[in-house]
Amino acid sequence: MNLDEELKEFILHGYRHYIPHVSIDCAIFGYHERQLKVLLIKHKFLDGWCLPGGYIKRTEKLVEAASRNVKERTGIDGLFLQQFKTFGDPKRMNLEEFDEEKWFALTGVRMNRDNWLIDQTISIGFYSITDFSLTVPQPGIMAEDCAWFDIHEIPVLEFDHDEMVKEALHTMRVQLYHYPIGYNMLPEKFTLAEIHSLYETLLGKKLDISNFPKKLIALGLLKKTAEKRKIGAHRSPHLYRFDKLCYENALKEGLVLS
Amino acid sequence: MNLDEELKEFILHGYRHYIPHVSIDCAIFGYHERQLKVLLIKHKFLDGWCLPGGYIKRTEKLVEAASRNVKERTGIDGLFLQQFKTFGDPKRMNLEEFDEEKWFALTGVRMNRDNWLIDQTISIGFYSITDFSLTVPQPGIMAEDCAWFDIHEIPVLEFDHDEMVKEALHTMRVQLYHYPIGYNMLPEKFTLAEIHSLYETLLGKKLDISNFPKKLIALGLLKKTAEKRKIGAHRSPHLYRFDKLCYENALKEGLVLS
Repeated sequence: MNLDEELKEFILHGYRHYIPHVSIDCAIFGYHERQLKVLLIKHKFLDGWCLPGGYIKRTEKLVEAASRNVKERTGIDGLFLQQFKTFGDPKRMNLEEFDEEKWFALTGVRMNRDNWLIDQTISIGFYSITDFSLTVPQPGIMAEDCAWFDIHEIPVLEFDHDEMVKEALHTMRVQLYHYPIGYNMLPEKFTLAEIHSLYETLLGKKLDISNFPKKLIALGLLKKTAEKRKIGAHRSPHLYRFDKLCYENALKEGLVLS
Repeated sequence: MNLDEELKEFILHGYRHYIPHVSIDCAIFGYHERQLKVLLIKHKFLDGWCLPGGYIKRTEKLVEAASRNVKERTGIDGLFLQQFKTFGDPKRMNLEEFDEEKWFALTGVRMNRDNWLIDQTISIGFYSITDFSLTVPQPGIMAEDCAWFDIHEIPVLEFDHDEMVKEALHTMRVQLYHYPIGYNMLPEKFTLAEIHSLYETLLGKKLDISNFPKKLIALGLLKKTAEKRKIGAHRSPHLYRFDKLCYENALKEGLVLS
């Protein structure tokens, strides 16, 4: 395998531009028509799949590093992004399994025991949500593949990433009660049935049909439009849209959907 | 100022035992009789107050480092402890203000620009809650004072610790709806009015008296005991206690108080 110069430089001298010992990992959830998926990458130097992630530039805030990563993998800028947990366990990386000679034979790059990448790393988990049908997954220089997996068909992941997905999903479900979520996952105008399906799919459980959307309307997040959509001989439900100002305020201040 | 050998060794060679570039900071909240406080330390080498914190031993999980720190400062083991957010901004430490000569004159210890402590540090925030009347605050080797401050009378803190307190308080208030909290802050048996006061004080707002405790009872977290407490000529409310098994399960699984 021939590593390109960019990757070689990153491995040997990345610590000059990135903070050592700290990485970010991103659980990017994708929703479309009642399906919930998560974006995984197949790393060039690992057997299994894992969450996309990377290091933090010395000039970046954490959320900027995560945002850059999410944009690089999905092609979409400005997605909802939220820290969920930071992971740090001396055993999370299996560093003792690293084989200098095997690595050299594989890549032609000398990566010694004192290389900045071969040391304990704390990883900060972010989660994001988007409409997967609008994305074009990009592996980037570290991976050979990048693809959406249904939430019920995730393979066993590398490192502690199984736990990360579980925790990300848990936090996302708790935060659904405290942040407005939906902007990137529904068309600009949508029916109450559509936003109800979105919440049911994200929460992974049935909801009282009359409940969630009504609360969103009561909070001013949803506005009824004059338009209707004809979905049957006698069914033409009203279309709704998010109130952008109210939505952004709720993102900042939080809300209590209870 | 004469630094003791332990502190000198930590400054010069701490990176051998602790992970560089990563620290933890703990917002330890204290409750007692309708008062909410936060524990602050006055660092030996800083002018202002800040949250207690420290580094992570290379053999520790994050929560173990936080737990060690909380125990060292409060004298109490096994407190409720929860990550709330990780902070990393290139500007959060004011590293360019560090003056090698001033430091040497002050301490007699040569701390160069390449010292492991003089570089960007990401900090993982944990929050904890206890009954402040049961604690004996301990400054430890890095601080000259450690004391409880009322939540409404917190001075301007060092670094980004004002933001940390704000975020910790926000997360704690959100999580009150998802985790049972109270074990370390109420006597073993208590009245519904007492747990109601606890929730009101932690949330910083008035609650419908009939609401919160009833939900906790409905969830099986609170059990009525046969005992009553005489608090007036015609008032002897029943005492309640937490159901330990149910409480611990709710801590693991989360709950929805809504």
